[in-house]
Amino acid sequence: MYEKVYQGDTRTASRLMRDIEEGLPQARAEMKRLYPQSGKARIIGITGSPGAGKSTLCDCLISHYRKQGCKVGVVAIDPSSPFSGGAILGDRIRMSRHADDEGVFIRSLATRGQTGGLSRAACDVSAVMEAWGAQIVIVETVGAGQAEVEVRRLATSSIVVLTPGMGDEVQAIKAGIMEIADIFVVNKADREGVERTVNDIRGVLELLPDGGPQVWRPQIVKTVAFRNEGIAELGQALDGHHAFMLESGVLAKRARERAELQLFDLLHEHVQLKINAVLEKKLDPQWREMLASRRTDPYTLAEGVLKEILNGDD
Amino acid sequence: MYEKVYQGDTRTASRLMRDIEEGLPQARAEMKRLYPQSGKARIIGITGSPGAGKSTLCDCLISHYRKQGCKVGVVAIDPSSPFSGGAILGDRIRMSRHADDEGVFIRSLATRGQTGGLSRAACDVSAVMEAWGAQIVIVETVGAGQAEVEVRRLATSSIVVLTPGMGDEVQAIKAGIMEIADIFVVNKADREGVERTVNDIRGVLELLPDGGPQVWRPQIVKTVAFRNEGIAELGQALDGHHAFMLESGVLAKRARERAELQLFDLLHEHVQLKINAVLEKKLDPQWREMLASRRTDPYTLAEGVLKEILNGDD
Repeated sequence: MYEKVYQGDTRTASRLMRDIEEGLPQARAEMKRLYPQSGKARIIGITGSPGAGKSTLCDCLISHYRKQGCKVGVVAIDPSSPFSGGAILGDRIRMSRHADDEGVFIRSLATRGQTGGLSRAACDVSAVMEAWGAQIVIVETVGAGQAEVEVRRLATSSIVVLTPGMGDEVQAIKAGIMEIADIFVVNKADREGVERTVNDIRGVLELLPDGGPQVWRPQIVKTVAFRNEGIAELGQALDGHHAFMLESGVLAKRARERAELQLFDLLHEHVQLKINAVLEKKLDPQWREMLASRRTDPYTLAEGVLKEILNGDD
Repeated sequence: MYEKVYQGDTRTASRLMRDIEEGLPQARAEMKRLYPQSGKARIIGITGSPGAGKSTLCDCLISHYRKQGCKVGVVAIDPSSPFSGGAILGDRIRMSRHADDEGVFIRSLATRGQTGGLSRAACDVSAVMEAWGAQIVIVETVGAGQAEVEVRRLATSSIVVLTPGMGDEVQAIKAGIMEIADIFVVNKADREGVERTVNDIRGVLELLPDGGPQVWRPQIVKTVAFRNEGIAELGQALDGHHAFMLESGVLAKRARERAELQLFDLLHEHVQLKINAVLEKKLDPQWREMLASRRTDPYTLAEGVLKEILNGDD
């Protein structure tokens, strides 16, 4: 039914992605089937505030890898938030330069609030893109929400995009992004304040503990994405990081962790659905008010729910 | 059995706390019994890096509230980590100035890695302290781990302690502490660089969106804790924040959220125990290797576990 995915058919791949989101059993069966072949693609996470030129940069990277003959998937996490609505739309239009390229597959995922759901959806979509033939999957996130942080764990290489003088450095630090970025890109590097930004980043990096030669020292690359400048250097930095991850065994270790995280995400998501169903349908509909006014307590409520959902064997 | 707790008996209260951690059914029954009376105490969260003088400050606050005739509980989260081992021990010795005061109850909780477990333990211990008679409960955390972040949600007022020139500002920003602090204390304010630190904090606060008059603007208080200076000002800032929280209804809203979080913590913790039991005892003991080598997949494994733990009624 989904056979054409493996032949590079975009439409069938889109259908499979949608069917997984819907939770259709045949889609889940297909995910089990394609799983053994997945996990080989390079997954490049790109994040940064709106206006940093992230999508333009992403655009450049797509072209870069296409020129190398790679098929490229792009998972765009669309926060559907008022903070970035207009910018996101503009970015999407820009990325449609690749819309006619059969070697590029772009898919947007909307954040709906649940953390586990988003990272698992991104995981599934990446796996399908791999099955479709992508050797590179770019995962683009905006902002610093818990959901986006989860998604970034998916990446084999993480890029953070900053721009000179926008106060981004502080935002990035706040988001805990500094600790996950493998490569910092200072985009719009033709602007004033670029060296100060580079130095600020170096300053914060110096605060991180030195893990020795087995630990990757984050690199800083300057780009002017709209003029396609600095992209070759970025590509090299990415290759260097990937090689490092392979040789040091970190890649394999991260893949194992990711698989186990996926397992727990699936378990918690399913259990949460059961919990919600019981809370909405089987408990006193006033349970929230009763808890707030302390006429009941979390222990009693928890016992009621667990009794309904768990197998009583132990 | 635990009747003496309500009469202010410290030993019985300690025993109840220990029995809850052990999961004894009579302790859980007691938690249900004391729940309706809990949630009235002010819970003051104090956090900051080791060496910021946090415990000394805590000490001063204890004296401050004791002079007002309040009984004070202190929940000290001890990370048991090499980064702060020695300092923590020293702090504990300092706090024992209050060891003979029957109006002060200090208890340490060790972090054991599980996020939900720690915040729930802190919640339970606070509730017992309230039943014991505490009008103020101080919750002291160190560092920026996920567990400590969870615990800080427990507080009705959150204090972050920084010191001049230690680069703490960056650390605080990294930890996402800037967004939860209601009051910033710059301790060791007799040192050089104090005004720069105050300005740095103001600078970062200006980056936060202005929520209007219904949102608390974090205050900055300078102290020299070892000389007991600035403590009255800190007390006033705390009173001001508490009044604001009461009048704006935020206090009630946070109490509701906390109760629901406790419920979900209890549920997830129990379910995780069941999941772990199945993974360790009922699945193929090689499941980790099989998953890593892709001989099985997360979907298949998840189905196996869910089948074992869930009630099959739906």
